[in-house]
Amino acid sequence: METRIIKGNIISAPEFGKLEITEKGYLIAVDGKIKGTFQKLPDEFSDCTIEDYGDALVMQSFADMHLHAPQYPMLGMGMDMPLLDWLNTYTFPTESCFKDNKFVRKAYHRLAYELAAKGTTRVCMFSSIHREATLILMEELENAGITGYVGKVNMDRNGGKDYQETTEESISETVKWLEACNFEHIKPMITPRFTPACTDELMQELGRIAKEKDLPIQSHLSENTGELALVKELHPDCVQYWETYAKYGLWNDKTLMAHCVWSDARERKAIKDAGVWAVHCASSNENLVSGYAPVRVMLNEGLNVVLGSDIAGGDHLSMFKNITAAIRASKARRIMDDWKTDFLTVEEAFYLGTSAAAPFFGEKPGFTPGNSLHAIVVEDETLPMVRPLSVHERFERCVYRREHGAILAVYSEGRKIFGK
Amino acid sequence: METRIIKGNIISAPEFGKLEITEKGYLIAVDGKIKGTFQKLPDEFSDCTIEDYGDALVMQSFADMHLHAPQYPMLGMGMDMPLLDWLNTYTFPTESCFKDNKFVRKAYHRLAYELAAKGTTRVCMFSSIHREATLILMEELENAGITGYVGKVNMDRNGGKDYQETTEESISETVKWLEACNFEHIKPMITPRFTPACTDELMQELGRIAKEKDLPIQSHLSENTGELALVKELHPDCVQYWETYAKYGLWNDKTLMAHCVWSDARERKAIKDAGVWAVHCASSNENLVSGYAPVRVMLNEGLNVVLGSDIAGGDHLSMFKNITAAIRASKARRIMDDWKTDFLTVEEAFYLGTSAAAPFFGEKPGFTPGNSLHAIVVEDETLPMVRPLSVHERFERCVYRREHGAILAVYSEGRKIFGK
Repeated sequence: METRIIKGNIISAPEFGKLEITEKGYLIAVDGKIKGTFQKLPDEFSDCTIEDYGDALVMQSFADMHLHAPQYPMLGMGMDMPLLDWLNTYTFPTESCFKDNKFVRKAYHRLAYELAAKGTTRVCMFSSIHREATLILMEELENAGITGYVGKVNMDRNGGKDYQETTEESISETVKWLEACNFEHIKPMITPRFTPACTDELMQELGRIAKEKDLPIQSHLSENTGELALVKELHPDCVQYWETYAKYGLWNDKTLMAHCVWSDARERKAIKDAGVWAVHCASSNENLVSGYAPVRVMLNEGLNVVLGSDIAGGDHLSMFKNITAAIRASKARRIMDDWKTDFLTVEEAFYLGTSAAAPFFGEKPGFTPGNSLHAIVVEDETLPMVRPLSVHERFERCVYRREHGAILAVYSEGRKIFGK
Repeated sequence: METRIIKGNIISAPEFGKLEITEKGYLIAVDGKIKGTFQKLPDEFSDCTIEDYGDALVMQSFADMHLHAPQYPMLGMGMDMPLLDWLNTYTFPTESCFKDNKFVRKAYHRLAYELAAKGTTRVCMFSSIHREATLILMEELENAGITGYVGKVNMDRNGGKDYQETTEESISETVKWLEACNFEHIKPMITPRFTPACTDELMQELGRIAKEKDLPIQSHLSENTGELALVKELHPDCVQYWETYAKYGLWNDKTLMAHCVWSDARERKAIKDAGVWAVHCASSNENLVSGYAPVRVMLNEGLNVVLGSDIAGGDHLSMFKNITAAIRASKARRIMDDWKTDFLTVEEAFYLGTSAAAPFFGEKPGFTPGNSLHAIVVEDETLPMVRPLSVHERFERCVYRREHGAILAVYSEGRKIFGK
């Protein structure tokens, strides 16, 4: 039995919009599973070593539920282009370079390290179309202590001549990739890029594989109006975009759909009824001028909403930055909705970037006993103060601003994966 | 004659939307004034020492044309409140602490250092109502090498009991402050906080002083709909907000007006006709859900538009971040305008944060010969690359993303104020 006792100001989001704060408290995990948060150290642990972070903030680590690993080299570039142009000019040419395994290893080693250092301990991630690169990505994430899912991308049309598979290749490489997956904390996920990039035949086969092997699924939905028009043209039989996934068995309660910017009441009902997860990618939607997802409405309607950095449509891996991007986007949405929808508070957006994803991984929100330990320790900014700040105020400032090196330690499934 | 030769990839914005790039070039200044940008070192300088930054980017430094120095301690706090509540809950109580000169010195010393380190070499800044604190602020900025204007704030109503002057105090303290100002690079600016905080009598006297001493003026205009309603109530004789400044002589071509979010065609015409400067504060407008200023329309109509961080409505001093905030806000505005107005490109927004302010200080856009040298040197991110990037692409990435410590050196009025 390995016991871990973390002392500090413990902050978690057990419910949407609520924070639980235990000042100078103890967060205890045994064999990687949370035992509880305590104001006073329980007697049974009095002989154990304490990791004492003094006055620092101990909070839940992040889940980045949508990002593209092979777009890491193009972070912060091509931000003046609309989605479909941006894909052809920057994205596909960059992703196509992930056939060079030496480069792949270097790029993914650094990506995995940066995720850990920034406090992202759970991911659902797109790789490229390359089987070997995908396995290298999974290995690097596993080694860095990150947990979650990775998908080899499938695309057999509209990728251009240099970055596309035949339908047969796409299927056979996927089967080979699935057979080779053997990691403890990083599991495979079926990943049709999006409807415009996958033929009906490929979609059908991917649905069959997902069902047969009981695998989760990730793709893109209703990001951009140009994309909607293209999907309509490709699937005249489908009333809405989501039906192009549903008709091939790619639409269930283990399905993540990134964006949902243009999902109207009917599409949102379909998302809710199937238990599909909407991944809100605020920074990407801003950069690519895709629009502002109706996040507040989705939450009110009871949809599952989580957050994604969507690098490299998003320009930063830090989930702190993606949380404030979600707040900003909700404020833009409030203005667009003539001040009728509420924006996301800091506490609400923090919940979306942390607790909201827990059920996808079979766990509960917050630092609930029984959950595996996923946590970060953060130091305050050293700005001059006119009065002592409450832990709640320090939490808010920490979400908006941190100094370089402010993240002191990161824990993932009970293991310390970053820090001294 | 002091000659300064900076070698690197020289990048400037001589025109709105245009970049001038001289790869591996020389930026030369003599006695603090720019001589020119050269691809090859002119013979006359062949004996001079070269500051060689290798492959780094050498670009114009920033002008932050609207920020509140005494709000520095509350950066990133209270972001869930609308303007008028936020002022009463956070802002006024924080500003009122700037009567303690020991704290003032400490806070402003750090603020001045941080501005220099982040490459902001020109400012137009609000202080608090305190005369002594304002002089300390000016001294700290002067010592840090920052240039520009600072104003002691005037407010004789609606500040609450702990943070307000009588009309007489406000005037007499302003006169005493102006007499005490004696700094080479930091000059005084008349600063009525905004119409709701200044009686007619105070406004009239400030207009008189500004005219008599030929001083520039800064205030706030049409930031928030609640504020508009309040101004309308206070000045039933004025059709629009701007007239409450114009009728007291506070409306001319040396006047900066922050925000202008809700300035309609008539108000924009008044701004243009008087040569008033509109200071766009995108991050603050987002955070406080004020709205999205019609920046593209203002630019098309020929108004002077510059940028401000507006800390602490804005949550970051870095003008790189405020430039990307302006791009994002313009994208939000594009969506709100049903895709009819263009967003700001990276080059355009960079121009607004650098060159656009030059005429306010009597200079020309870009690294024009005759301008004083205001420049920064920036290193690239070390992300893995799939191909060599052009200097133009590196510039774009640098605007969106930089690593900690990426700013290697900062020059202000010819002096090196930051770096080894």
